[in-house]
Amino acid sequence: MTEALAQTPQSQTPPSQTPQIDHQRVVFPAGLALDSGAVIAPVTVAYRTYGKLNAQRSNAVLVCHALTGDQYVAEPHPITGKPGWWEAVVGPGKAVDTDRYFVICANVLGGCMGSSGPAELMPPQAEPTPGASRPYGTDFPSITIRDMVRSQKLLVDHFGIARLLAVVGGSMGGMQVLEWAATYPEMVAAAAPIACAAYHSAQNIAFHEVGRAAIHGDPDWMGGRYWEDGRIPAKGLSVARMVAHITYLSEAALGRKFGRRLRGASALTFLEDVFEVESYLRYQGSTFVTRFDANSYLTITRAMDYFDMASEHGGDLPAAFRNTTTRFLVASFSSDWLFPTEESRALVRALNAAAANTSFIEISTDKGHDAFLLDEPVFHRALGGFLRGAAERVGV
Amino acid sequence: MTEALAQTPQSQTPPSQTPQIDHQRVVFPAGLALDSGAVIAPVTVAYRTYGKLNAQRSNAVLVCHALTGDQYVAEPHPITGKPGWWEAVVGPGKAVDTDRYFVICANVLGGCMGSSGPAELMPPQAEPTPGASRPYGTDFPSITIRDMVRSQKLLVDHFGIARLLAVVGGSMGGMQVLEWAATYPEMVAAAAPIACAAYHSAQNIAFHEVGRAAIHGDPDWMGGRYWEDGRIPAKGLSVARMVAHITYLSEAALGRKFGRRLRGASALTFLEDVFEVESYLRYQGSTFVTRFDANSYLTITRAMDYFDMASEHGGDLPAAFRNTTTRFLVASFSSDWLFPTEESRALVRALNAAAANTSFIEISTDKGHDAFLLDEPVFHRALGGFLRGAAERVGV
Repeated sequence: MTEALAQTPQSQTPPSQTPQIDHQRVVFPAGLALDSGAVIAPVTVAYRTYGKLNAQRSNAVLVCHALTGDQYVAEPHPITGKPGWWEAVVGPGKAVDTDRYFVICANVLGGCMGSSGPAELMPPQAEPTPGASRPYGTDFPSITIRDMVRSQKLLVDHFGIARLLAVVGGSMGGMQVLEWAATYPEMVAAAAPIACAAYHSAQNIAFHEVGRAAIHGDPDWMGGRYWEDGRIPAKGLSVARMVAHITYLSEAALGRKFGRRLRGASALTFLEDVFEVESYLRYQGSTFVTRFDANSYLTITRAMDYFDMASEHGGDLPAAFRNTTTRFLVASFSSDWLFPTEESRALVRALNAAAANTSFIEISTDKGHDAFLLDEPVFHRALGGFLRGAAERVGV
Repeated sequence: MTEALAQTPQSQTPPSQTPQIDHQRVVFPAGLALDSGAVIAPVTVAYRTYGKLNAQRSNAVLVCHALTGDQYVAEPHPITGKPGWWEAVVGPGKAVDTDRYFVICANVLGGCMGSSGPAELMPPQAEPTPGASRPYGTDFPSITIRDMVRSQKLLVDHFGIARLLAVVGGSMGGMQVLEWAATYPEMVAAAAPIACAAYHSAQNIAFHEVGRAAIHGDPDWMGGRYWEDGRIPAKGLSVARMVAHITYLSEAALGRKFGRRLRGASALTFLEDVFEVESYLRYQGSTFVTRFDANSYLTITRAMDYFDMASEHGGDLPAAFRNTTTRFLVASFSSDWLFPTEESRALVRALNAAAANTSFIEISTDKGHDAFLLDEPVFHRALGGFLRGAAERVGV
């Protein structure tokens, strides 16, 4: 079914900035009205699915990806060739069991893997100055997490799914889970916001601002028009990735992984890159720029910074979930300092205040924020059980 | 006395890269042999003093400054005009009481406020290619915290001080305190390493590497030779400062200071710099570049990263302090995540293992690493009492 649905709309797809990858996608000509007041039309949603949608269309699990993730959840990445980012969790017999569930993941609005975003070509009618087709670049409008969710709703409607068995995601994916539950409560039977919070903290905004300053400061960013010369602001984007990467790990994880180990030397040599952690970070930065678009990074980090569910509901976070029938599993990780457990607890208190059916689990781990992506059996069992419970309630 | 001592050597001082500031300094023609095997000759030590050295020369307290600090401890900064960086602690009647003690602070070796460092002019004989005088730049040798301490020893000897009443410092200043106690134990009656650790952690090295990558990536760095065109790598250095600044604060401090407060707008406007914390950070970055040299930043952050006292003593940290007669006050701050209390505890365990007379205090505060610079009365009373005890033991 997925294939049949996808093929027709794909013929309407404008050429991608990454033409070597034929992303599976749907184009919605009517477009999408954004929180900012702007309209993106047409709007394109790139996606991948795993497993089979049942006849009742009742076994769909929507997975929402994080800042630098994408729709390639459980298969090799088309650029890097590396395993999908959540293969520890999504697959046959796994917590998100593709033998049982129909798993959908869309590239977020503003992303750079085929959905409408700064790297995609602007529709001719949207281009401020007529002329040859060119990417949106910094003319891509400001978006919010809720806008991302609205674009995913188009895709879910397109599949003819009235109610998702579950919406699941970590980090920025968890923010989307919360917006799904608040914006389309009747469409979400179960919601698992993982390693996230109901708002982005001042410290997290500050780290994002460092990354953005690094990109803006790179002369190859060219005020956002780097596509004109076929350049990319590789140095700035790499620095942004490096600082973000530190926040994804814990001090303990970095210490265990690298400590003060030296590179190819038994004694201090007073050279550059003398510590393994340095070359690791530089490597993370340098590979990131081969798969991610700098303007996308700017757009999506801004969307995360804007995220504050309470402020969307008059300063009253419980109001976002009042009278919900969605069941929640909130999961945090003890060594996550990007989204500390305390922020998950605040979310749980709001869900309880809204009388939402809520489970909460804090996983003991020293792997930091990245733990949600890694081998954490206790977390996987909790998520698997939560989804089986949701499935049994609807007879899947 | 200070003036008399300082005047003669000043006539030997090579012209400074910051000629508008007539730093008080001493030039040591014999130079300094470094841990790396290189020699800096002559070596210059810029410094400031407060209070009066007594006739027995027994009331001297050496203050060691942090990464971006300098010798202007308790007086307006000659570039920014702002109060000295430790006026909360150093002054008449304060914890480091200048009515009672003779306080010395030297600009660290590798710094950019008059001591030998990358921004200072290279001695003609040291220049690899003969020609016009030019700054060391990246030809300044790699240095260690111990090298910084050795340069300060020259200054202390120059004052004719055989034994310092105390050596005191926070952060990188604390690292120097530890090296003083380990390298010249007979010269240190009391040592107060504050908000520091006996080694630089992988996470801290990683944050430094982000800052260095930002500087290296700035085309105005010009491979370190930015002085040739009179440029400075302002954008890269600013990003380095921004990321470091986040690590100096706690999440709670950032949250309390800024939270998600918007700049001049009551509702989300989807503009750049929409949050106060962003403009604050950008401001911190932009002002830093007016007073700090990028190559100095590279040199000093490297020295911090190299710091690992145990490895200097065969992997045995207590060996660094064996048979010491120095008394120690180790102080940490509960919300400091750059140098967490656990690292101070490890230091205290090593001092105890070495049978050193050691007090330890953890100050409860939400101000993060920066707390050592701020109004923390409990800390100030502890430090003041520790110094009075040391003074009374020698009859000062």
